[in-house]
This record gives sequence, structure tokens and C-alpha cells, in this order.
Amino acid sequence: MTVSQTVELEGHIIDSGTMGACFAIVMDMGGEFDVDAFEVGRHKHEETYCRMRVLADSEADLRAILHELNQQGATVADPRDAVLEPAPADQVVPVDFYSTTNHPTFVRVDGEWLAVENAEMDCALVVDRADDDGTPRVHTTVLNAIEAGDLVVTGETGIRVEPPERPREADGSFGFMQGGVSSERPSTSLIEEIADEMRSVRDDDGSVLAVCGPAIVHAGGRNALADLVRAGYVDSLSAGNGFAVHDLERDLYGTSLGVDTESLEHPRSGHKHHIYTISEIVRLGGIPAAVAEGVVEEGVMYECVDNDVSYVLAGSIRDDGPLPDTITDAVEAQDAIREQAREADLVLMLSTLLHAVAVGNCLPSTTKTVCVDINPATVTQLLDRGSAQAVGMVTDIGTFLPMLRDELLEHPN
Amino acid sequence: MTVSQTVELEGHIIDSGTMGACFAIVMDMGGEFDVDAFEVGRHKHEETYCRMRVLADSEADLRAILHELNQQGATVADPRDAVLEPAPADQVVPVDFYSTTNHPTFVRVDGEWLAVENAEMDCALVVDRADDDGTPRVHTTVLNAIEAGDLVVTGETGIRVEPPERPREADGSFGFMQGGVSSERPSTSLIEEIADEMRSVRDDDGSVLAVCGPAIVHAGGRNALADLVRAGYVDSLSAGNGFAVHDLERDLYGTSLGVDTESLEHPRSGHKHHIYTISEIVRLGGIPAAVAEGVVEEGVMYECVDNDVSYVLAGSIRDDGPLPDTITDAVEAQDAIREQAREADLVLMLSTLLHAVAVGNCLPSTTKTVCVDINPATVTQLLDRGSAQAVGMVTDIGTFLPMLRDELLEHPN
Amino acid sequence: MTVSQTVELEGHIIDSGTMGACFAIVMDMGGEFDVDAFEVGRHKHEETYCRMRVLADSEADLRAILHELNQQGATVADPRDAVLEPAPADQVVPVDFYSTTNHPTFVRVDGEWLAVENAEMDCALVVDRADDDGTPRVHTTVLNAIEAGDLVVTGETGIRVEPPERPREADGSFGFMQGGVSSERPSTSLIEEIADEMRSVRDDDGSVLAVCGPAIVHAGGRNALADLVRAGYVDSLSAGNGFAVHDLERDLYGTSLGVDTESLEHPRSGHKHHIYTISEIVRLGGIPAAVAEGVVEEGVMYECVDNDVSYVLAGSIRDDGPLPDTITDAVEAQDAIREQAREADLVLMLSTLLHAVAVGNCLPSTTKTVCVDINPATVTQLLDRGSAQAVGMVTDIGTFLPMLRDELLEHPN
Amino acid sequence: MTVSQTVELEGHIIDSGTMGACFAIVMDMGGEFDVDAFEVGRHKHEETYCRMRVLADSEADLRAILHELNQQGATVADPRDAVLEPAPADQVVPVDFYSTTNHPTFVRVDGEWLAVENAEMDCALVVDRADDDGTPRVHTTVLNAIEAGDLVVTGETGIRVEPPERPREADGSFGFMQGGVSSERPSTSLIEEIADEMRSVRDDDGSVLAVCGPAIVHAGGRNALADLVRAGYVDSLSAGNGFAVHDLERDLYGTSLGVDTESLEHPRSGHKHHIYTISEIVRLGGIPAAVAEGVVEEGVMYECVDNDVSYVLAGSIRDDGPLPDTITDAVEAQDAIREQAREADLVLMLSTLLHAVAVGNCLPSTTKTVCVDINPATVTQLLDRGSAQAVGMVTDIGTFLPMLRDELLEHPN
Repeated sequence: MTVSQTVELEGHIIDSGTMGACFAIVMDMGGEFDVDAFEVGRHKHEETYCRMRVLADSEADLRAILHELNQQGATVADPRDAVLEPAPADQVVPVDFYSTTNHPTFVRVDGEWLAVENAEMDCALVVDRADDDGTPRVHTTVLNAIEAGDLVVTGETGIRVEPPERPREADGSFGFMQGGVSSERPSTSLIEEIADEMRSVRDDDGSVLAVCGPAIVHAGGRNALADLVRAGYVDSLSAGNGFAVHDLERDLYGTSLGVDTESLEHPRSGHKHHIYTISEIVRLGGIPAAVAEGVVEEGVMYECVDNDVSYVLAGSIRDDGPLPDTITDAVEAQDAIREQAREADLVLMLSTLLHAVAVGNCLPSTTKTVCVDINPATVTQLLDRGSAQAVGMVTDIGTFLPMLRDELLEHPN
Repeated sequence: MTVSQTVELEGHIIDSGTMGACFAIVMDMGGEFDVDAFEVGRHKHEETYCRMRVLADSEADLRAILHELNQQGATVADPRDAVLEPAPADQVVPVDFYSTTNHPTFVRVDGEWLAVENAEMDCALVVDRADDDGTPRVHTTVLNAIEAGDLVVTGETGIRVEPPERPREADGSFGFMQGGVSSERPSTSLIEEIADEMRSVRDDDGSVLAVCGPAIVHAGGRNALADLVRAGYVDSLSAGNGFAVHDLERDLYGTSLGVDTESLEHPRSGHKHHIYTISEIVRLGGIPAAVAEGVVEEGVMYECVDNDVSYVLAGSIRDDGPLPDTITDAVEAQDAIREQAREADLVLMLSTLLHAVAVGNCLPSTTKTVCVDINPATVTQLLDRGSAQAVGMVTDIGTFLPMLRDELLEHPN
Repeated sequence: MTVSQTVELEGHIIDSGTMGACFAIVMDMGGEFDVDAFEVGRHKHEETYCRMRVLADSEADLRAILHELNQQGATVADPRDAVLEPAPADQVVPVDFYSTTNHPTFVRVDGEWLAVENAEMDCALVVDRADDDGTPRVHTTVLNAIEAGDLVVTGETGIRVEPPERPREADGSFGFMQGGVSSERPSTSLIEEIADEMRSVRDDDGSVLAVCGPAIVHAGGRNALADLVRAGYVDSLSAGNGFAVHDLERDLYGTSLGVDTESLEHPRSGHKHHIYTISEIVRLGGIPAAVAEGVVEEGVMYECVDNDVSYVLAGSIRDDGPLPDTITDAVEAQDAIREQAREADLVLMLSTLLHAVAVGNCLPSTTKTVCVDINPATVTQLLDRGSAQAVGMVTDIGTFLPMLRDELLEHPN
Repeated sequence: MTVSQTVELEGHIIDSGTMGACFAIVMDMGGEFDVDAFEVGRHKHEETYCRMRVLADSEADLRAILHELNQQGATVADPRDAVLEPAPADQVVPVDFYSTTNHPTFVRVDGEWLAVENAEMDCALVVDRADDDGTPRVHTTVLNAIEAGDLVVTGETGIRVEPPERPREADGSFGFMQGGVSSERPSTSLIEEIADEMRSVRDDDGSVLAVCGPAIVHAGGRNALADLVRAGYVDSLSAGNGFAVHDLERDLYGTSLGVDTESLEHPRSGHKHHIYTISEIVRLGGIPAAVAEGVVEEGVMYECVDNDVSYVLAGSIRDDGPLPDTITDAVEAQDAIREQAREADLVLMLSTLLHAVAVGNCLPSTTKTVCVDINPATVTQLLDRGSAQAVGMVTDIGTFLPMLRDELLEHPN
């Protein structure tokens, strides 16, 4: 038995590689295609249109192929409404639920194309008909937030995805993003471009989210980051318990025990300080209380409190303590991170894999992302999620942050 | 002002490097020492004794030096009882609390040396006088379990640490442990030695804890691990939500959708399967229920349920779902992991950094540990915690597990 | 001033990504294009034809664009003969010399398309008119072999490149090649596929070239490799001085000094053995002489000599000695390696970056290549040279070689 | 049969770890020891003396143990002259030749202790009796420079090694060397210390050798390095053909083809430029000629020529070309590198493994070494050769060099 469905592709689908990708998907998955119409954009500003019939051996195969084509931006030629099915139980999705990409997505309900709110990958789509003004809405929902009876989109019908197109030419704002990861690109030039982007986000009242790992403190980038927070270049911060404790410990012990943290002499008994720092913050009632009481007087967390920069500290099974400010429940922490990710216009992922993955999981593909790590594998993994606006830099966070600070604060344009 | 304290060292302190380490500590920390007595073991089976006076410029400096010497096994020459102070509040330790190593430790209370129960690093020591039979007990307590009023050991007085000595000669049981990490050692021979160790732990009714990362499933080691669980070579398992979902997904989807997982063809739409697997396990009520209903019929989690191998699945902020079996609170999960770690005689850390660090944090230095990862940095980090019984292997988990399985099941001695 | 040139593309240019790549090249390099004709292959077995006019602002820009399009397989629509210019001096090329890819290439001379002999990347093309039978020939020439007066191809005119197309479906012979590098693919299955490929090359009287690093000896893969050489699965071997010395040293000292190389006990004074091994081979007059005199009786080099497997040992500035068999001049060594590379039907790159790069530089893109290394960066770098027939495996050479040996020798099909 | 030999140790042998190491050697190698005398240095400025008898089962075992003890600085208690044996042939050493460490070494000849000239590891020691003034001399000789009849030192008798002792306290000059490799140390502080060291070497008319990899050019550190050469902070340079070509190519093509190397736009057809750069330098007759003719006007190689900084370009089998300035023979290149290494007071190893290993092989353990690479494994491997004066930094060469330049040129003290 052969079944078929006609799909359409439109846009800069040749030079973006979309068209080749679609043809490859059909063939790789055992299907065939007949091209019915093909109108190529003759100039670089013209779009291309392709209509083709996809054939497969079974309904299941056809559905699987259409699912993949859909994620590339292909739409079925004869649009019908999306199929909705109620969730059978809390945290349970219908069998053929639609699993989201992080691209801008539209769902056809009652003949109307509705934009999906809060694009996020690997979610279900839930349609809410009972909106106040009578128009339905559709939004992404993570599995654990599904409630019995939620109207969940299933199948591929009535769904349109718009993957970001590769920009045809550098547009000045984030042109380096096309380069992807590279340890072979001039580092200082890249830092200047990142600084430009941060200035431009700031000028547009946008929001910069810094995702921070403890290596920032160990490698000597802490003061530079604190300066950036104070100067208003960071609008929210996402990190783990460890980052905050290391940052606070520098303040509580950096000089008080006579050890000069700049002198490169490793104080022994390091971990005792770590534990005791947590104990002290517990005693005082949390980081804001420690700042209010004057016990913490500098550093990244201090500047966050002092400048009303919101932060999320997410717990992990390797934490000591944790601090009272740390969210220990992974699901609660994810929800808090999701909030941050949705607000952000630019995300700086600074030497952390765990927290950067958690943030990255919640980001729409349209959010600009900079990922800095000394480990090329980390950078590659973080960038490898379909973002069209991501740049990676394999470098030392201990030299990167001071250079970025100098670039932003000493050459303020 | 010069203050001083006499300390003693005894044992194979020269060839183990302990003595040199102690002298270096005193000098690095700005102190001086006078050696009062030094009796060297003339033969390799004789112990060495050293008594020296340590001098420092202030009480604070002296205390810091003694803290470090103590962790090397040095004891003050004239033993007095440990100093106990009540914890000022829940989760708050006294200022000068003693922070533990993971070595066997003894505390002097009322003139008696008490062995510390449950050696674990970076904990406080709490003395419990109100034992049923009247004798006091002392045990490690993590910061978040401290309760107001707990009698916490402070200072360095009355505490004796016994770091494990490097074995003088291979004793047949775990002789390769001295090698540490090496990618330059014959791999097949190392696998044979690990198999020998597992056999010997099993013969002694000991307990093997496998700490598992998702790479086991991706790299093709899943079936071999399932075989080892079924054959009784694994007594408990520690992993994350991701490992369990990948393992279950292979079972739920490995063949049901017509995709042969052995054929190297990557099924597309992978993540949808991942989410749906979780949804299905939620619907069924958890992994044991899924096994009971016959939905899950093979794989690592199946064998765990079928063979009463206990498991802990710890949540993380990068999880999907999670499964109902996953402990999402980091502190609860640590407590469950601590239970496992204390039971274990041999720990296999298999391609996971996060979970291996969490387990490693709870292990006494006397527990044998094998760490396998393809990333040398992971192996180094995991072994670098003072264990005298640890061996690292930089290799591919996808070839390691099948070779270990063959070694154990096909050459059962 | 706008200049233009019409080019043609033909083949499976959409699904192979070629067409998108060509459009991207034009735009990235500041040109424009007009599509004159576009006939899409409606079915997967039909080819697509595209003719477009490329416009640029200057002759230099146009030439640069055409150079890149050419390397993707595009040909100018109205073919003319290639432009030939004599080399001005030894080792000096004309200004606009054509720099080769490693793909099959054809050059139009006197109206005839001549296949380029010995495809190799980054070479010049030299036309030799004075062939015995009067027909001209064209072959790649490395810079240092260029002689004054050689007729060197310049510009892009009259040159046709045929980049290998991505296979549309697994054809049984080397189907896994599409996967590229992956540490997430089932390792044992990949080893079986590599074994199948080796068997099939052997059955076709093809030639397998093993490129070997010293880690093979350190990690315990030496005996397995020696077995493969003896069994006829390796036809030639390329390595450095270090590999050979480590291999010979195992034989000369592995047991003779009472140290059991299988026992994991590192003999001290290792480097002295290394030097003395070289000294002994010098004394005997080289490896074949050492085998003939019975001093070397096993190992990889022994099996090479005993089974007439040719080998190239290339020198490096970090060598000790070197052995008399080692070619110390880099240019001579490259020439010897080039010989080997041209003969090979399948190349195994085993835990060496330097020698694998040297061999890879000489390989046509049509030669099948397997690259095994524990460092993902090495594997990525080696595969990243446009070969359509390359597979990478991030694994431990010390477990890979024994498993490959078992697969080939114990399941000989 | 038990044989024995009495050996002595003297110095800061406890806190340097030497004594523990010696005891461990004896036991690991199956021997026993009796301590005859042990006088411990009571204060940190006093030396310790130990005399012990080493027992082994055979002469061969005893000799092996003594060889290892010797390399730790132990001397036989009853000094006799070293045993000399003539080399049996060119490039052939006597059976029991003494293989050198890179530590300061003394050989007893005719009752006199002679300092070994040009300490270098893994060499033979050759005694030259026929010196002009009648006093014998002893120097290291690599295997391939041994000539038949050379008087080669054999056995362990009459040889004294003085391994550098770990400094007891920071002495201001190179105090960070104790830290070894660390990605957890404040990067900017380390750069300041390296700059201090370079200033101090320069003030003492010492010599700084920069060992350079091509990543310097790719990552954007080229201009900073050129500035340092021009300012006189680099006295000689060691690199490969690739580094020089990339550096020259930037100059020849960086702006001439209209591609702004600072703009991050990757020019296509990169490799053609690489080859053509070599061709042009060949045509001109080499780098100095290209500078003299004004074709090369800036960059690292330009500054070397312009400032009479000597350089060695060593060939490798992965080179294109090579340049006429490149030494293609590995043995000749090693000899040139050896010259450079012997002159150097401070060696900067900058993002190259191959050349840094080659230089490192020739360095005495007393030469100060700084190793910078983004790959921690490279840094570890380079530092792991017994130097007491080495510091490693895991960082991005593209940010390191500009920061070092700024530190040296903008804060010239």
C-alpha cells in the first residue's frame, strides 16, 4: 500500500540547505517524492517555492516523514486544523503527541493560524480554548505540567514551523554567529563583537542572562564579572550552589584569614572554608540578609543583590550545604530557569555545562547565545541545538572576562 | 609571639610520603619544626616514629598547621579529649568545627578513642553521648543535617586520622590500584584484573555499586551491563533520570517501531520517543509497575527490578520528565546515594561525571573504586580524592562493558 | 563594472547539498546569480540540472567565486581548454595556479577531457604533452616537485571536479560512512562493519594501509595488530620511529629482563631500554637484519618483515635515535608515504595524529578511511577533509584492536 | 644469592620527597634496605643525611635499583671512578651504558668529579681525555652522534646526580613554578608573574626562547608576539614550517587581496594562499630575502629578521612546501634545536606539542619553562619531565599573548 501527502516549501530554501535536507529526509526514511512544482528564486532576494508529493509504504512511515519535514518548515499543501486530543492523565500525553522544536511555530485551530507562545523544544503543545476574550491560545507545556484533559496537539496536520534562515549577509548585529565554534578565529576581535552585541542589547532595554560556572571564580574572572553586573550589563544570573559559595567564600575569606587571593598561594583547608561559608549564610538567613548585614561586601552575588539583578541558584547532587537560596528540587529549579530563559534577549554561557544545558533546553531558537568554555566539546554540545543566533568561543574564562570588561567599561563607545 | 605544639607520626611514614608531606606543610604554612626523635624502620616491615615540635607565629597559624598535619595522620603528642561545642542553630556549625577527611578517623571522648562511624569527607563530627548502653558514639554529619545543640567536634585536639598507606607490594587483590589513571596501560589486562576483583567481592558476599551514565546506552554497552546485573555482579545501581529513560526507551521502542537498534541507523524523532517513554512509565505508575505489566521486558532497569537490585535515580535540572521513580530533590537524592555508598565494597563509575562525583563525595577512602570514562579529565577528577584503592581507565564504555561481561561470564573461573 | 560567467551543475545536487552550497558561495563572496534553467529530478534516481549566470564586481572576484564553485563540481557552461603556463622556476608556481582538491578531476586539453592522475589535495596540475603515444597526460604535482618550465594549469577554465556524492542508501559495503564521528554509536556493531569492510577489501585483492601510533603498544593492542598482519589483513604500514622502537623493545626486553609486560608492572628505566633497542638495531644493520638474525622474533615489525608487508617509518624531531630504517628527511618521507597512500583501498588510522594527517594529505577523496582515536578532536580533524568514505570511532585502541582481531580471525565468515 | 651496596643521600631529602621516593624504589623493585645512619635536619635550613645498605637477589637487580636511586641523587657510599667502555661502532652504545637524566650530573674520572657539560636527558655520557690542557671532560651525546671508540660511561659507579630541590619558600623570581598545571589559578595574576620573569631574564642579559605553533596566528596572537619580538623580549624562536607560512601569508595576503584579517571573515581558497606564499618565498630565495626586498613588511618572521632574532624552522611530514628556510632532516633539525635549547634561560612553549616536546627533550632541568596551551593534556605532558622550574597555563593563546604584551609594554616597570 502506498500512501501520499503533498507538502509545500517556501523561502530561501535552497541556499539555507532546507530543500536538500527535506529531500534527504524523505529518502533516508524510505519514502519517495515527486516534485510537482519548483519555482526558483532567480535573485538572492527572491524566494523559492517547491511543491512535492511524498510517498511512503504505510501511514506510520508517512507520518514519521511528515513529522521530520514539518520540523524543517514544510507544510502540508492543503491545510486543515490541527488534531487535538485530551491528555489521558496528569503528566501523560496522547500517543501521537506533537513534540516541539525550539523554532517559531504556528498551529491551525478553527481555521486560524495561532502563534505558539513560549517556543521551547521537546514540549507538548496545549490549546486553551477558554481564553477570556474567546480566542483560543496555544502554548508549549513540559511533560510534568500536563494535566488530565489538556487539549494536546497530535500528528503533524495544521502545524507550521519557521526555522530561522541563515542570514544572507552580515547585518552588523550578530554577524559572527555564522561561524559557529572555532578555536581558530582571532580571539580579541570576537570579544569586541560580543561587547558590541551586549551594548546593543542594553541600548534596546533588552535583557542579558549570564549562566555561570564556578570556574569563573577559580580562574580569576570573578571581579570582572562583578564589575559587569554593577555596570548594568547583566540583567539576570543563573548558576548553581557551588558558584555562589565560591563567590561568597572569596569575600568572606579572601582576605579575612590573611590569605591574599591574588597571590596565587593556595590556602590549604579550602573545603572547610567552603562549608563554613554556607553555614554562615544559613545563620544569617540567606544571601540578601548577608549583604544587608554587611557581611558580604563585594563579588558577583553582592552586586546582584545590590543592583537588583535577579538570580536563580539551582541545586545538584554534588552540592555541599546547600545555601538557603538554592532551589533543591530539580523541577522547581527548571521552572525558575524557564522564566529566566524566556525573558532573555542574549544569553552568556560562561564555563558551565550543566546549567548551560538546562538554560539552553528552554530557549527559543531566536534567542542570541554566546558560549564560552575552555573545553571544545562543551562548546560544541551547547551550540548544537539549532539556534541560528549562537556563537561559541573556546577560551579561558579567566582572560575572557577581564578583556570583555575592559572592552565594555574602558571603551564605552 | 611564638607558640608551639608537639606532634607524633608513626607508621610507614617515609616511603608513603607522609613524612615529607608533613614537613612541607609546616614550611609552606610559615611554621618551623624541631625534630625531637626520629626512629627509622630499618626494614621494610618496620614502622618509623617521629616526634617533632611545630612552631608558629600565632595561635591561628598553629591551629591551621595542626589541622593539615592531622589530616596526614599526625597526632598531638599529649592526647587530650576532643573539644565539643553545641551547634548554634540548625544547619549551622561552630566557628572552628572540624571538617572531616574520608579516612578512618578516631575521636577522643572521656579519655577513650572512638572510631568515627560512616567516614565521609567534608562533614562535621557529632558526638552522641546518649547512646542506649551509655557509651558515647561519634559520626559524620553533613551540614544540612546538623541540628541546633548537636555536640560538634572543634579544633584539632583529640582527633586521629589514619590515611591508608600505599601497599608495599601487590597483594593480589587490587594491586593495580597503585597505577592511578593511565591510558598507557594494557587495556585487556586491566579488564581482567577488574573482573577478578568483582569475582572476589562477590565471593565474599560484598556489594558492588554501579554508577551509570547514559553513554552506556548510546555506546552499545547496555546489554552487557544488563547481563552483569542478571548474573549477580551488580548489587546496587546509581544513575540519573536520563540513563533510565534511555535504557527503557530502547526496550519500548528498540524494535516496536521497526527500527533495529543494532543496525546503526539513527531513528529520527529521537527525542519524542524519549518524552513518550517517560509519559508511558508515568501512566503505568513507575518502572516496577511497567515491569510487572510486561511492558518493559529487558534492559538494565528491567534486570534491576527482576533481580531485586536496588537503584537510586537522582534528578537534575537537565532532565526531561522526570520518571516517577526519580528523586527530584537534591538533598533527598544525596541521602539516598549516601546509603548506597556506605554499603558498597566496590564502586564502578561508568561514564558519568555528575553521579560519580556525588557518590564519590560520600565514599570512605577505604572503598575500592574503578572509574571508566573516555575523557581523561573525568577520570583524573574522580580519582583525585585521596582514595588508596582507586583505579582509572580511559577507555570506551561501549567496548569495556562487553569485554568485562565476556571475561566474567565466559571465563567464570 | 559587472562581469559574469555561466556555469552548470548536474547530478544529485539538491539532496547532496551541492546546490545550496553553490548558491551560498556566490552570495558569501559578494556575487549574485541568475538561474537560467532548473530541471529538478522528480524521483530519487533522476538527476537535477541547473544553469546559472554568476555576476561579480571584478574579474578577480569572479575568478575567486568560480574557483570555489569549481571545487563543488560546477563547470563553466561553454567549455574551453584549460590555460597552461610554464613554471617560472623550480618549486615556483605561476601566479594563478589551480590548487587541487582531492576529488576526481578532469582537465580539458586540446579539446579532450583528461582524467587527472593521482588525485591529491593542495597540489598543482602539470600537463605532460610529450607522452610516448602522443596523447597528453595531466597529473598532480606537489610544490617541491615542480620544475622550471612545467606546464601548470592556471585559472578555472577547462577544469571539472566530481566531488563524491553522498550515497542515497546504504549499499552494504561501507554504509556506516555517513555517520561521521560519533561516540554515541554502538561500538561493537561498528567494529563488525569495519571487519566486514576489511574482509571485502581482502577478497577483492585490495590493499589495506595501517597508519600506526605508539599508543597501540602502550595500550595493549600490539599483539592483536601483529596477528592481523600475519593473517594478511594489513598490506602496508605507515608509522614513525617511535612506534617501531616501542614495538621492537617489547620483543627485545618484554621478557628478557624478567619483566612480564602483561603484568602491568611498569619497568623503571624505560627510556634506557628505548635507546638501547635503537642501538642494537643499528648494530645489527636494521630491522630486517635483526629479524634475519633471530634477535627480533615477534611483534608488528617482525610480522611485517616476515610477511613482506612494506612499511614506511617517517622521522620526526622528537625521535630518539633514529633507527636506520627511519627516513629522516621530511620531503623524502612524504614521497614514500604518497606511494603508500596511492596504493591503498582502505586506510586504518590508528591512534596517531601526525602520521595520519601526513597520509590523509595524500589520499584521494574516494579512498575509504577508518580513523580510531580516544581523542574526539583527533578524529574530527582527520575526517574533516571532504572524504565521502570516512568513518571515525572514538574509542580505546587497546580494546579496539583485540575486538577487531577476534571479529576477523574467530568469525572468518 | 644476596648482593648489596651502601648508598648515601644528603640534602633536603625528606621534605623534597627524595627519601620517600628512594625507599619506594628499593621496595618496588624487589629489594630490601637497612638504614645504617639517619641524621635528620632539625630545622628547615639544615640538611638531612641518610646512609643505607641496599640488598637485592642478583647483580642485575641491584644494578637496576642503583640506577634508579642514582637518578634521585643517591650516591654509592664508597666512590670509585666511573667505568668507561669504548663504543663498539658508530651510533652503538656499550650494553650497560648510563642513560642520562636532565639534572646536573657529575662523573668521577681519575679521582676527580667532573661536571657533565650540556645536561640533556636520554643521552650517553662520553669522556674526552684528550682535552687541550690535559684535564678530561665529560659531555652528553645523543645516540646518533656516538662514534666508534668514544669512551662511554657505563654502570652507576662514579656518577652523582643533583636533582633540583623544591624551593622551600617563594623566592620572588619564579615562585609560581611550584603550582604546576592548573586551570584553577587566577589567569591574570599568572600572566603578571610570567611578565616579571621575562623582564628579569632580559635585565640579566639572559635569553628567552619562544617555541611557537600555528594556533598563535589563527587565534589572533600574532601581532602581540611580533610586538614582543620587536621590543626585545624574545631572543630566539623555534617553530615549524607551518607557523612561518601562516605568519607570512597574513602579511602577503592579509590585506593585499582585499580580505581584512581582523574582520573574522574566513577567506575561502585558504590553502591556495598557503601554497602560493611558499612559492613566492622560494622565488625570492627565502625569508630574509623576502624581507630585504620589502615583500614581507610585518609579522613575527619579519621582526625576527629585522631584529636579528635567530630562528629554527623544523620540517615535518605534514608540511606543505616547505619553505627554503625549513630544515627538512629531522636529525639536523634536532641539532639546531639543541643549540637553541642550551642557550635559553627561559623557554616559552606556545601552543605547539611537537616542537615543544622536541625542545623540551634537550633542556636541562634547571631551565625555566612556561607552557601555554588550551589543551590540558598538552600542558601536562610538557611539564611532566622533571623540571623544577616549569609552570603550565591552560588558556587561549589568542587572549594570552595580547595580555602578556600589554603587561610588558604598557606597564614597563
